[in-house]
Amino acid sequence: MLDVIDAKRNGGVLTDEQIQFFVDGVVDGSIPDYQISALLMAIYFQKMTAPEQTKLTMAMLESGDQLDLSKIEGIKVDKHSTGGVGDKTSLPLAAMVAAVGIPVPMISGRGLGHTGGTLDKLEAIPGFRVELTEAEFIEQVKTIGLAIVSATGQIAPADARIYGLRDVTDTVDSIPLIASSILSKKLASGTDALVIDVKTGSGAFMKAEEDAQKLAHALVEIANGAGVKSMAIISDMNQPLGDKIGNSLEIEESIDVLKGKGPADLVELIMTLGSQMVVLGNKAANLDEARQKLQATIDDGSALDKFKQMIASQGGDTNVIDDYSIMPQAKYQIPIKAESDGVVTQITADEIGVASMLLGGGRAAKEDQLDYAVGIVLNHKVGDAVKKGDTLLTVYSNQEDITKVEQLIRDNYLIGDHAETLNLIHEIITD
Amino acid sequence: MLDVIDAKRNGGVLTDEQIQFFVDGVVDGSIPDYQISALLMAIYFQKMTAPEQTKLTMAMLESGDQLDLSKIEGIKVDKHSTGGVGDKTSLPLAAMVAAVGIPVPMISGRGLGHTGGTLDKLEAIPGFRVELTEAEFIEQVKTIGLAIVSATGQIAPADARIYGLRDVTDTVDSIPLIASSILSKKLASGTDALVIDVKTGSGAFMKAEEDAQKLAHALVEIANGAGVKSMAIISDMNQPLGDKIGNSLEIEESIDVLKGKGPADLVELIMTLGSQMVVLGNKAANLDEARQKLQATIDDGSALDKFKQMIASQGGDTNVIDDYSIMPQAKYQIPIKAESDGVVTQITADEIGVASMLLGGGRAAKEDQLDYAVGIVLNHKVGDAVKKGDTLLTVYSNQEDITKVEQLIRDNYLIGDHAETLNLIHEIITD
Repeated sequence: MLDVIDAKRNGGVLTDEQIQFFVDGVVDGSIPDYQISALLMAIYFQKMTAPEQTKLTMAMLESGDQLDLSKIEGIKVDKHSTGGVGDKTSLPLAAMVAAVGIPVPMISGRGLGHTGGTLDKLEAIPGFRVELTEAEFIEQVKTIGLAIVSATGQIAPADARIYGLRDVTDTVDSIPLIASSILSKKLASGTDALVIDVKTGSGAFMKAEEDAQKLAHALVEIANGAGVKSMAIISDMNQPLGDKIGNSLEIEESIDVLKGKGPADLVELIMTLGSQMVVLGNKAANLDEARQKLQATIDDGSALDKFKQMIASQGGDTNVIDDYSIMPQAKYQIPIKAESDGVVTQITADEIGVASMLLGGGRAAKEDQLDYAVGIVLNHKVGDAVKKGDTLLTVYSNQEDITKVEQLIRDNYLIGDHAETLNLIHEIITD
Repeated sequence: MLDVIDAKRNGGVLTDEQIQFFVDGVVDGSIPDYQISALLMAIYFQKMTAPEQTKLTMAMLESGDQLDLSKIEGIKVDKHSTGGVGDKTSLPLAAMVAAVGIPVPMISGRGLGHTGGTLDKLEAIPGFRVELTEAEFIEQVKTIGLAIVSATGQIAPADARIYGLRDVTDTVDSIPLIASSILSKKLASGTDALVIDVKTGSGAFMKAEEDAQKLAHALVEIANGAGVKSMAIISDMNQPLGDKIGNSLEIEESIDVLKGKGPADLVELIMTLGSQMVVLGNKAANLDEARQKLQATIDDGSALDKFKQMIASQGGDTNVIDDYSIMPQAKYQIPIKAESDGVVTQITADEIGVASMLLGGGRAAKEDQLDYAVGIVLNHKVGDAVKKGDTLLTVYSNQEDITKVEQLIRDNYLIGDHAETLNLIHEIITD
């Protein structure tokens, strides 16, 4: 192990054998924490080449259970997001892509801190089960073309130990370590292709555009190196995505998208990611054709139907499609009104996410219980002109007193003379 | 601790409080190994400023026992060497400087690997005790002006834990960590001033001149910052120092120096270091005057007498002064002869040190027993012209078969057409 640390510390490229030795030793416990953390810090400084990152990812991936989706015909395409506020993209996206005929085996996660999790949102639907057995998962993707579930088995145990150490040794923000951590878990779904949404801006893990670019390139290079065809986009997370934040609220908005009534930014992001998925899944020759096919799934109701099938198959109450009120509803809807005329100049995504979390819609700690009912509906977004007295946003709360939350929101929802235009899609990276 | 790692990882300067927090946590065990090693690796990459290094050294020094030499009058001056082959400098030097009237409280170490240790050499003298109590040590320095002993009590326990981790996390060769480790132990002797001999070349820990320079500057800056007036020289360790290697043999050569019969390179190094010590100890106005005073201690026998007093005071048999044969003697003296005419071009110091170790004169592992009798006497050094059949060196062995050692020596004692001149004193650093 000392040789491995030395090679990396001195700026060398680790061999496949060295990386395998490291990951094996992480899993079987033969390498002590202090040597792992020394190597992590050396990687932080010296970085890794694309082949090193791919090997590290594969070794971590192979340290745990992996799904075998070979029984499902067709090119399976999955999507990953680095996480944001109001980001319910996966839900309508999966249904639309599945409706085009591409199998979507999606393994998702839960939310922590200011970002929400896809699984949490789905659980706002009464009866919805995110924990399927591997056999149920495969059978459902074969039958209806999509499933969104939590990971089963032991996914990438090497990552679990490494991640734990990164957290306490200040080596979290290292691109090779972030990228290998994400993909060692994501690729365990056994997908054939992957579309990655790297968020940048105040509400994103990668706040700086430059870091988001580096991470996006690393993710695409690693996944391609692992034989999973992939591309990434960099999308804006300065303000929340769409108009609704909160679990029940985001299911509402997702179904609205499938009914053709989605907010423009969310729909545009879905179309951008979805068209890439459709092309990767060989169901369209180019992105324009892919967009038309996706639009058709909205127009003909097939995407909504696909979503309904998934809800039914995973035990959820399909009445939610026509009656959002069967989901947990907040006792109070409290409007926050403009105190002056002007233009909305900023809705700081991470702080608005924290506001939703404080209402009970998110977790400060892993073991926190969620309140699916609560959240925030944005009545105006950045660039909108507002008049004094207009409702800027509506707080959905189960407590009447929201003084602290309102103060946090007001500090982070700014009105001014002139707003910079926020460009939603910053970059498309196909390497 | 995460904040401390983060500050250093990002290239910041640690505050005194942060360094103290780190060292306290190292000693009381509240900081886990993996965070210590992460910080060590961050320090490896980001380095430390002189004040940071001084604070680290002081905090490590203060983590353990320190001698209080205030009962000894005068400016106490100690000497430290980073270690070499054939380096018995401390022995005659301490006696000469003490004979000039400067108290020399010297805490020395044992040898490991290819380098010898001062304490090991002294123990070749029958009866010599290197383990004095603190009271005995102080009393002896007060009475006769010098003592050379091993450390008592718990010296710099923070360094012990940090050093153990550096060894297994590839963070040994970091100048701030080397310098703070050396000085946290060395300054525990309570000296007022310190002269440091940083070796460079094949037989030295710092093989590259540039590294030796960096270390020398760091050591001087730290010691001065700690209120201990110091200077350093960089001296050559490409070939062994002096003509004799081995414990009994190096005591012989040390006494020879005090009798005015020392080899030129060893004497020159002693004069260079000693004159600095005499000036630091305020017993001479300048280096020339200091040299004259040191020469006088040889000429009038006072340095030899001082050495004899020390031997007596530490329980050794003073007959050694006139009869080297009372020390362990090797059974075999085996000459290694030149196989061709030429000039000695290279005597690779570390490998010759290993040869002496293999004979039993040094330790491969800490617990190894030493054979004081064995060693090597160099009959010719680099630059000497030799004829085929001349004795190049003599192996002092207790085994008759020295085939392996002879091969190692022949591979590292080279004869050629032309030798580069080895400059003994490379640089004098007073900052």
